[in-house]
This record gives sequence, structure tokens and C-alpha cells, in this order.
Amino acid sequence: MELVEIGRVESPLKDRGSAPKQGDEGAPEAWLAFEAGFATALDGIAPGDELLLLTWLDRAHRDVLRVHPRGDASRPEQGVFNTRSPDRPNPIGLHRVTVLAIEGARMHVSGLEALDGTPLLDVKPLLRTVQER
Amino acid sequence: MELVEIGRVESPLKDRGSAPKQGDEGAPEAWLAFEAGFATALDGIAPGDELLLLTWLDRAHRDVLRVHPRGDASRPEQGVFNTRSPDRPNPIGLHRVTVLAIEGARMHVSGLEALDGTPLLDVKPLLRTVQER
Repeated sequence: MELVEIGRVESPLKDRGSAPKQGDEGAPEAWLAFEAGFATALDGIAPGDELLLLTWLDRAHRDVLRVHPRGDASRPEQGVFNTRSPDRPNPIGLHRVTVLAIEGARMHVSGLEALDGTPLLDVKPLLRTVQER
Repeated sequence: MELVEIGRVESPLKDRGSAPKQGDEGAPEAWLAFEAGFATALDGIAPGDELLLLTWLDRAHRDVLRVHPRGDASRPEQGVFNTRSPDRPNPIGLHRVTVLAIEGARMHVSGLEALDGTPLLDVKPLLRTVQER
């Protein structure tokens, strides 16, 4: 199960200490720079769309199985699968973003808490109601 | 970027032709059989919880970049990143499930459209409101 990098995040966020914990907690705008060969796979996406973005959290610790939620030592330890900690066996980030602009294989998005240089893995549309699919 | 298998799906769904396209389109109950070493990472999850489950869609075609949405040839082709097709460069499945029961490293869930034997990659809680995190 080997992943391919489809692109990278370009963001003013450079390290974990300065990043918000979730995209709706003050995350900045960012660019998604896709590899040119994947531009055709973006076809149909338009400004205003809400997307789910999957990333590879390459600065996470994969051997961590329990954490204090949100790094708050006053809260009891939980299994990482009951938290959104980036530290987990397969550090796949899941981010909900809004498309601001698309320029070829580059996409401008709002509300992304992923760090600069984070590899991109996948993009999925939000599911609408069953009738609208 | 190499993934580790944290467990497998046990489901009555055996092939793509018989599976619903999404979990809320008549998907059955299923068991998630985690590797014993990851049981501690489930700590805190309880029956009734809604979770996001990430899987490796091992029967998908990774070289597909454009598809007809929902396999309907009457609909214009789209980039796979604008669809929920399992066929995509990194075939990571994203499923919203409800926990019915937990027995050690085994979890019973409802509404999972993944096929029997599908490798499990990650489990995440649904994000609540900012105030509840």
C-alpha cells in the first residue's frame, strides 16, 4: 500500500506550533500545487465548491497510539482513533476547504491548517443529498 | 509514503457489483477487525458514536483520472477528484459509520459500503462544534 504524491500544499504555516488545530479555527488561505499530470482529474471543480482534501501529515509521529486530546494534559488520555491528533499509525489529514480559484493545476483554497510542503493524496467532493448525486 | 494495515473489514459485500455506491444507500452492518496491537488506540470510542473510517480500496484502478459520475454513461465525464469513484490515484475510501458495539479489538458498525477484506487505515471522530472540542 504505497501512496503517490499528487501535489503539495503551499502555505504560510511553517511548523506545528504555529498551526491551528482545525481548519475552522483561524487557518489561512493556501495554494494546492498539483503535479501537472493530475490536472485532468480536477475537471469539473469550480470556485465556491466545498471539497474534502486528504494529505500526508509528514511531520507526524506514527508510533503514537494514545494522546491527551488537543495536547491538553488536564484531559484524560484517549486512543488516537478517538481524536484528530496528527500522530497516528497512518497520518492521513482530512481537511474541509472551499475553492477560491483554479489556475490550471493550481488551486487556491481557504481554511487549510496543513503545513507548507505537506504532500497531497486525494480530493473528494462533499456528498450532497441522495437525490442530488 | 507506505501505509500500514490496522485491520480489515468483515462484510457480506463480496464484490463491487453488489455494493451500494455510498453507505447511506442501503449498506449493511459490518465488523471491523483491528489488529490486536491497535486496540489501545480505540480507547474512548463507545456505541452510538459516529466515526469517519478510512480504508484502502484494494480493488480500485489507480490509473483512472476521469470517469462518468456513478458509472452513468449519460452523464459527462468528470475528473475523478470531482467524484467519489473508488478509481483514483490513491484509492482511500472515506466512510461515515455508526458504532453498534465494541468487543476488544472488534467493532460492529452500521452503514458501511466497503467490501469484505478491505484493509483499514484510520478512524477519526466526527468534528463537533468548536465549543465542544
